[in-house]
Amino acid sequence: MAFLNDHYFKLKAGYLFPEIARRVRAFTEERPDLAKSLIRCGIGDVTEPLPPSAISAMHKAVDDLGRRETFRGYGPEQGYEFLRYAIAENDYRKRGIEIADDEIFVSDGSKCDCGNILDIFGRQNRVAVVDPVYPVYVDTNVMAGHTGPPDKSGAYQGLLYLPCTRENGFVPSIPEERVDLIYLCFPNNPTGSVATRDQLRGWVEYALGSQAIILFDAAYEGYITDPEIPHSIYEIPGARECAIEFRSFSKNGGFTGVRCGFTILPKSLVASTSNGEKKELHSLWHRRFTTKFNGVSYPVQRGAEALYTDSGRGEVRSLIRHYLHNAEVLAQALLSTGLEVFGGRNAPYIWVKAPSGYSSWQVFDKLLKDIHVVITPGAGFGAEGEGYFRVSAFNSSANAEEAARRFTGVKW
Amino acid sequence: MAFLNDHYFKLKAGYLFPEIARRVRAFTEERPDLAKSLIRCGIGDVTEPLPPSAISAMHKAVDDLGRRETFRGYGPEQGYEFLRYAIAENDYRKRGIEIADDEIFVSDGSKCDCGNILDIFGRQNRVAVVDPVYPVYVDTNVMAGHTGPPDKSGAYQGLLYLPCTRENGFVPSIPEERVDLIYLCFPNNPTGSVATRDQLRGWVEYALGSQAIILFDAAYEGYITDPEIPHSIYEIPGARECAIEFRSFSKNGGFTGVRCGFTILPKSLVASTSNGEKKELHSLWHRRFTTKFNGVSYPVQRGAEALYTDSGRGEVRSLIRHYLHNAEVLAQALLSTGLEVFGGRNAPYIWVKAPSGYSSWQVFDKLLKDIHVVITPGAGFGAEGEGYFRVSAFNSSANAEEAARRFTGVKW
Repeated sequence: MAFLNDHYFKLKAGYLFPEIARRVRAFTEERPDLAKSLIRCGIGDVTEPLPPSAISAMHKAVDDLGRRETFRGYGPEQGYEFLRYAIAENDYRKRGIEIADDEIFVSDGSKCDCGNILDIFGRQNRVAVVDPVYPVYVDTNVMAGHTGPPDKSGAYQGLLYLPCTRENGFVPSIPEERVDLIYLCFPNNPTGSVATRDQLRGWVEYALGSQAIILFDAAYEGYITDPEIPHSIYEIPGARECAIEFRSFSKNGGFTGVRCGFTILPKSLVASTSNGEKKELHSLWHRRFTTKFNGVSYPVQRGAEALYTDSGRGEVRSLIRHYLHNAEVLAQALLSTGLEVFGGRNAPYIWVKAPSGYSSWQVFDKLLKDIHVVITPGAGFGAEGEGYFRVSAFNSSANAEEAARRFTGVKW
Repeated sequence: MAFLNDHYFKLKAGYLFPEIARRVRAFTEERPDLAKSLIRCGIGDVTEPLPPSAISAMHKAVDDLGRRETFRGYGPEQGYEFLRYAIAENDYRKRGIEIADDEIFVSDGSKCDCGNILDIFGRQNRVAVVDPVYPVYVDTNVMAGHTGPPDKSGAYQGLLYLPCTRENGFVPSIPEERVDLIYLCFPNNPTGSVATRDQLRGWVEYALGSQAIILFDAAYEGYITDPEIPHSIYEIPGARECAIEFRSFSKNGGFTGVRCGFTILPKSLVASTSNGEKKELHSLWHRRFTTKFNGVSYPVQRGAEALYTDSGRGEVRSLIRHYLHNAEVLAQALLSTGLEVFGGRNAPYIWVKAPSGYSSWQVFDKLLKDIHVVITPGAGFGAEGEGYFRVSAFNSSANAEEAARRFTGVKW
């Protein structure tokens, strides 16, 4: 008799975004006349076309596949050298950070990496997540059996939640208890907060001291405008000994539908066997990649490479400027109605305090019904997200301006 | 202190294909003058350009991403409806097999699916694999902690190995002991054998009787030429209650570098919780997809869809004819030297008995050194593979003919 993985039944109802999609669908089925005027500021999905440099590189790569002389079959599972080099050179070495090409693992997206990374870790690790949190970190730990069931507040037993609040500027404090794996995400999804160099230094020191590993999600680093804010955890001395970094082309190159990201796993990173022996994690992740993955589509890797050319870089900068301008317009509108607004300056997300008396799903339902704008309820990101909502700046200028106009008219 | 997944250290040295690559590299570094004359009949990687229909569909899709009006960001994690429909309709419903669109899960390849499927199963399952076997089935079970260490013969404790021998025509016999998960692959990699309808019926009856689940890898179904041989496990009554099927566009459409495959997981499939309650597996796999994956690249899905158009189907048929012709040429050459040859008729692989006195890695080394042809040593596929070697028909006609010519000249 085949047995299934019971841990899945601990998961709370639907993953956040499918649940939002369900409510939006129900609304538009009831009011099909309003479907067209709906503005989505919910899921963080890009709206602008791909950079022309990526488009032409992908066309060329598709043509390569159409001719025997230039055809390519299986590529290296960890990514083509041309892309690993472009990443290591441009995102790291040119910024004075020591990362070797073969410490880059090219994947089909950082959502996948954030989940898959757990494969190489043991079950005895104590895991810390921030709250509010990108649900994937939590759900993948539940599915892997690293937690107990959720308690009444929705928090899973066995996970340590690090509250991110208005009081700590949405950057968690160092825990006082032992933790082995810590998920950090800056610029943060959902709060749009960033961590200063000093704050990250504190985390690296903590991790080195307790031989913990930081899983650092930097998918939104492209949105950092403040020159004092680190783009990579490896800007902090010692991070090569305690951190894995996740990056994505989704939000800078607009690759959400193209699918490409990468993990940086330094060869200097070790963890312990159950006997207390120290071993390199790099070789485990390499083994996982070669055994359970077969590389990213060749045209996609060529498209990603093109983002590092001069023209590509300029196009990425324009895309980011576009979304950051939307963020400013939306934040101004929300501020003007007296709401408290966070983030949106080094990040494409605005984190808004719900008016007193409103739960975050009530805000969701009200904004959907009254002004036909979809936001993300903070409660979907954890207990500390209750009483907040997230507004995504990923939109056309026209939609962002129209959403801003509608926000100013909401009667709370 | 962070702990790693100890199970990885049970894995035997390098995954087969990286080890082959290493030996070939060592050879060409020693004899760079011979690098050009090397013919690779090792890894099963396609060599012919993509079908023109896929090329133009991919170009069009890339253009879609370059214009705001047609741009697409995140798609449905399980695949676009256009592709799920094309698959379900053409590969199943038109052949009289009842499969719904939403029982299709589009992925970036069946290697990934074969590994990832273990996520939804419990650890208490007793797992059976065939021997010789595609190493991914075994290695992913080792990594997931479903086995003990390997014994002296290389067999992992806790796995049940079902021998596939000349005597049983390389189709395993039904086990006499309890088994919960069974990997079957037909047309088989590496032996090139196929299972008859009666043989598959036997497996389905066994699985239904013991409430086991068959993980049926049909990546090579496109190579079946014999009209009596089933293409899908779902041609067998009852299979919707006991089987998951894996398919790939790698070997029919030549998508090894493009990356697309799919899983069929019928909603009628149930397994047991540890309390003995029966639950649908479909919802677990769906949850895994939405949480740990973000869908296949849009241009790739359009390329796969094009393989189902009239022109696409014709082009796929020509590709398959091409590789099967190679298989015939290679098999004839090997036969003419007195070797015993299997497979290669409904499959792109030829399975050859090594001459007496040769281990399969000795055959590998000898063929590499003497005639500069790379094959795959049978031992890489398991204990029962020792004494055999695999010759892949994935090559240009020129290379296949030249390899055939060289085979005839080998002095054993």
